[in-house]
Amino acid sequence: MPTHTIGQIAQRVKGSLVGPDHLTIHAVDQLNAAVEGCISFIRDNRHAKQWARSKATAALVSAGVELEPGAGRALVRVDDADVGLAVVLEMFSPPAPKPEGGVHPSATVDATARVGPDAAIGPGCVIGKGVTIGEGCVLHANVCVMDDAVVGPGCELFPGVVVYRLCELGSGVIVHANAVIGADGFGYRPAPDRSGLVKIPQIGTVKIGNDVEIGAGACIDRGKFSATVIGDGTKIDNLCHIAHNCRIGKGCVLAAQVGLSGSVVVGDGVAIGGQVGVADHFTVGDGAQLAAQAGVICDVPAGATWFGTPAHDLRATLREAVALRRLPDLIKTLKKTSTQDG
Amino acid sequence: MPTHTIGQIAQRVKGSLVGPDHLTIHAVDQLNAAVEGCISFIRDNRHAKQWARSKATAALVSAGVELEPGAGRALVRVDDADVGLAVVLEMFSPPAPKPEGGVHPSATVDATARVGPDAAIGPGCVIGKGVTIGEGCVLHANVCVMDDAVVGPGCELFPGVVVYRLCELGSGVIVHANAVIGADGFGYRPAPDRSGLVKIPQIGTVKIGNDVEIGAGACIDRGKFSATVIGDGTKIDNLCHIAHNCRIGKGCVLAAQVGLSGSVVVGDGVAIGGQVGVADHFTVGDGAQLAAQAGVICDVPAGATWFGTPAHDLRATLREAVALRRLPDLIKTLKKTSTQDG
Amino acid sequence: MPTHTIGQIAQRVKGSLVGPDHLTIHAVDQLNAAVEGCISFIRDNRHAKQWARSKATAALVSAGVELEPGAGRALVRVDDADVGLAVVLEMFSPPAPKPEGGVHPSATVDATARVGPDAAIGPGCVIGKGVTIGEGCVLHANVCVMDDAVVGPGCELFPGVVVYRLCELGSGVIVHANAVIGADGFGYRPAPDRSGLVKIPQIGTVKIGNDVEIGAGACIDRGKFSATVIGDGTKIDNLCHIAHNCRIGKGCVLAAQVGLSGSVVVGDGVAIGGQVGVADHFTVGDGAQLAAQAGVICDVPAGATWFGTPAHDLRATLREAVALRRLPDLIKTLKKTSTQDG
Repeated sequence: MPTHTIGQIAQRVKGSLVGPDHLTIHAVDQLNAAVEGCISFIRDNRHAKQWARSKATAALVSAGVELEPGAGRALVRVDDADVGLAVVLEMFSPPAPKPEGGVHPSATVDATARVGPDAAIGPGCVIGKGVTIGEGCVLHANVCVMDDAVVGPGCELFPGVVVYRLCELGSGVIVHANAVIGADGFGYRPAPDRSGLVKIPQIGTVKIGNDVEIGAGACIDRGKFSATVIGDGTKIDNLCHIAHNCRIGKGCVLAAQVGLSGSVVVGDGVAIGGQVGVADHFTVGDGAQLAAQAGVICDVPAGATWFGTPAHDLRATLREAVALRRLPDLIKTLKKTSTQDG
Repeated sequence: MPTHTIGQIAQRVKGSLVGPDHLTIHAVDQLNAAVEGCISFIRDNRHAKQWARSKATAALVSAGVELEPGAGRALVRVDDADVGLAVVLEMFSPPAPKPEGGVHPSATVDATARVGPDAAIGPGCVIGKGVTIGEGCVLHANVCVMDDAVVGPGCELFPGVVVYRLCELGSGVIVHANAVIGADGFGYRPAPDRSGLVKIPQIGTVKIGNDVEIGAGACIDRGKFSATVIGDGTKIDNLCHIAHNCRIGKGCVLAAQVGLSGSVVVGDGVAIGGQVGVADHFTVGDGAQLAAQAGVICDVPAGATWFGTPAHDLRATLREAVALRRLPDLIKTLKKTSTQDG
Repeated sequence: MPTHTIGQIAQRVKGSLVGPDHLTIHAVDQLNAAVEGCISFIRDNRHAKQWARSKATAALVSAGVELEPGAGRALVRVDDADVGLAVVLEMFSPPAPKPEGGVHPSATVDATARVGPDAAIGPGCVIGKGVTIGEGCVLHANVCVMDDAVVGPGCELFPGVVVYRLCELGSGVIVHANAVIGADGFGYRPAPDRSGLVKIPQIGTVKIGNDVEIGAGACIDRGKFSATVIGDGTKIDNLCHIAHNCRIGKGCVLAAQVGLSGSVVVGDGVAIGGQVGVADHFTVGDGAQLAAQAGVICDVPAGATWFGTPAHDLRATLREAVALRRLPDLIKTLKKTSTQDG
């Protein structure tokens, strides 16, 4: 990893340095795990108490935190230590090892596929008929892109990713290992003779916008008809399930293990917590926030913050949770009163 | 995609055509996304209002919906527009591109494996010792079938599927990308010296019936002993977890991210909503329905519809959810009354 | 599978045999599925009632269960039939078919990788630059270990496992099919011009201790900085999600589909039920137990047993669930009383 002086770091995060500017920093860690040469971060006065015991050489400190660096150590005052941390991590980020361009000899690329300039197709990849792989794409090992799919320029697909036929990824899309784009939606109808279930063909596709990131093991099903759509800049975490014909807007954040049922519509700038579920055909309005594990069974208004199953207003849900803890005693008291009354 | 006249479609869905029969239809979409040449579907009067604004050329209309097609457009009246839609999707379903039969040169097939006639083994597949792959099977790229497993005739395994040794799939089973059949069940016992956990051997297998479909990334563990069993015609969605020694009946539907703990027994014709969990050793009776996110910690009677955690009767759970929203105010009122009384 | 006499089995489980000692046992199954020659297990008097109807030849019986074997059958009395069962399963466990050592010709191993003696690298595996694969490791088909990762001695990685670069596995680690170790954590910051989200580099790694087992499809993200840590002897079930910078202690058990958000700290000997979620930065104390589907949004004290969302004490939560079922009627009664009063 690269090293930087704390003076260089302070300059980059546009912070105000308290302490010597020549201290050498070579890593980033939390206060309680940091060793000499590390920079850490302090977002509030509660964490500030750990500074004295920490072995960190320096720390980013949020506005409002009262703290002095002490001898031979430095603090960098910034508006928000978390935002500053992101910038520092960029400074320490090792250059991503880009695999050599070209097609690895162990890959199987159909003669009708088009592979753009500077694209790297890793060992064991399988590229089907009529596929397009854009300029500068990196497909790590054992990625499979099925017939007629399109992977836009500058995408990175990690090992084991599968893109089903006809699905389309925009530019700069990152897909982590073993994620699956475009498997059949889950649709059946009763057999006419009631003997069982008949599969409904899933003839749609998946259309993923630009600068989307999709987590490991996540599954985005193809549409029953037309397409399942993921908007530009949306980020989807590990093991999420996006069912057929969902339409997710731009700049959304879906934490791990979220499940969206068929034809759910999500607006722009929506934040969805881990393990949330949304029932089919409902809409989550622009800028709404769903707290972790919420179970949505109606439309969510734009800008709302919801929690619970069935989900509704977060504050109301928390108030109810507090009230519920008093319910057993309340029932006992009422019973006693009613017995006394009688 | 193929094209059809609306007259041909009306005939195939056994519907009654209102409007010209020669209109050409080339795609299927929702009312608000359809373009000229599309057929759409209208399941109730609420959606019927969108017909005037829609660009769809035709629509399937459920019984009871009041609507006229308007000039140059057509409606097809059917009992149930959703069932009709399934039939229409079949008409428009492009023929599945079947990979060429035979074993791709980059696949590794053990000399003792038996591969049936007309089976296609894709690039990068690995087929172990003593494996049987039935007639007409399609194994897409990078599928792995471990020693002594049996894949029945007419199965389709998408890229990255893993079948552990000794597991058995019936005929016509579809397994989507990166699903895992037969990983070890989750069983440990305390070490005699209490130094940690000792793995309990998982010596059972998985037996999957005919016409089962398993979603992308789903995991079905092998039995601790004997087998984990999935009945004929059961459909399991993406990212479900079926633990060791579960026994699922016929014609069940498990939505995405369901988790069944060890030795759960599920009857026939059971419908389980997304993200439901069932604790170990409990039974879900025939025809029962579990609403999304339910957490089951006792046996579920046949035919019951349950919801909530701990799950019980759906209607009772919803009534309680409504009552809970009134609880904070109720407590406030009672406190006031009690203060006045005192 | 091997066969044993019931006398041999009784000796191995240190149990007391009731009945003939020469009966031949060749398999293990539940009472209601067992056939002749099977040994079964009876953990309580409720299950003891099934013994008469069962076709099992013998059974392990927990202390306190009252039962006689009957003619030509045998019982083995032990303290705990479940613990005895684990020992019996070890007796019947077929020797794991170890693939031949060496590198399969279809694998791609970088020239700078070090592969230990007796290690087996299966077909289609891809081993990056600077990787270390320890002595006696088994990498089944299509496993991918990216640059500079370290796999300790005696590990077994099932097909499709992906280990991202720089991640480290201890000795004797088992990773089931399609699990992903070291994908990027889920971290973004708003673009300075508010045009969207900017990815925060995830420059940390994953460090997995010795004798850890990780289930199929599970995802363990790399740290934003330093490492995500899994302690010795911890067992993680299928489809779990462990976010960046989590620190899990020793000897923990995480059931399937658990989700831990970023920087969660889990002590030693913690048991977490299926589908539990823990919000970011909270701590779960040593020996704590979280019941299935719990949603944790504060620190959990050592030794506590919690349930529900928001999670708190299990018994209190169950008491509240019971009280909640009476709430709708309570509200009705209070309304009636209040009307009468008025």
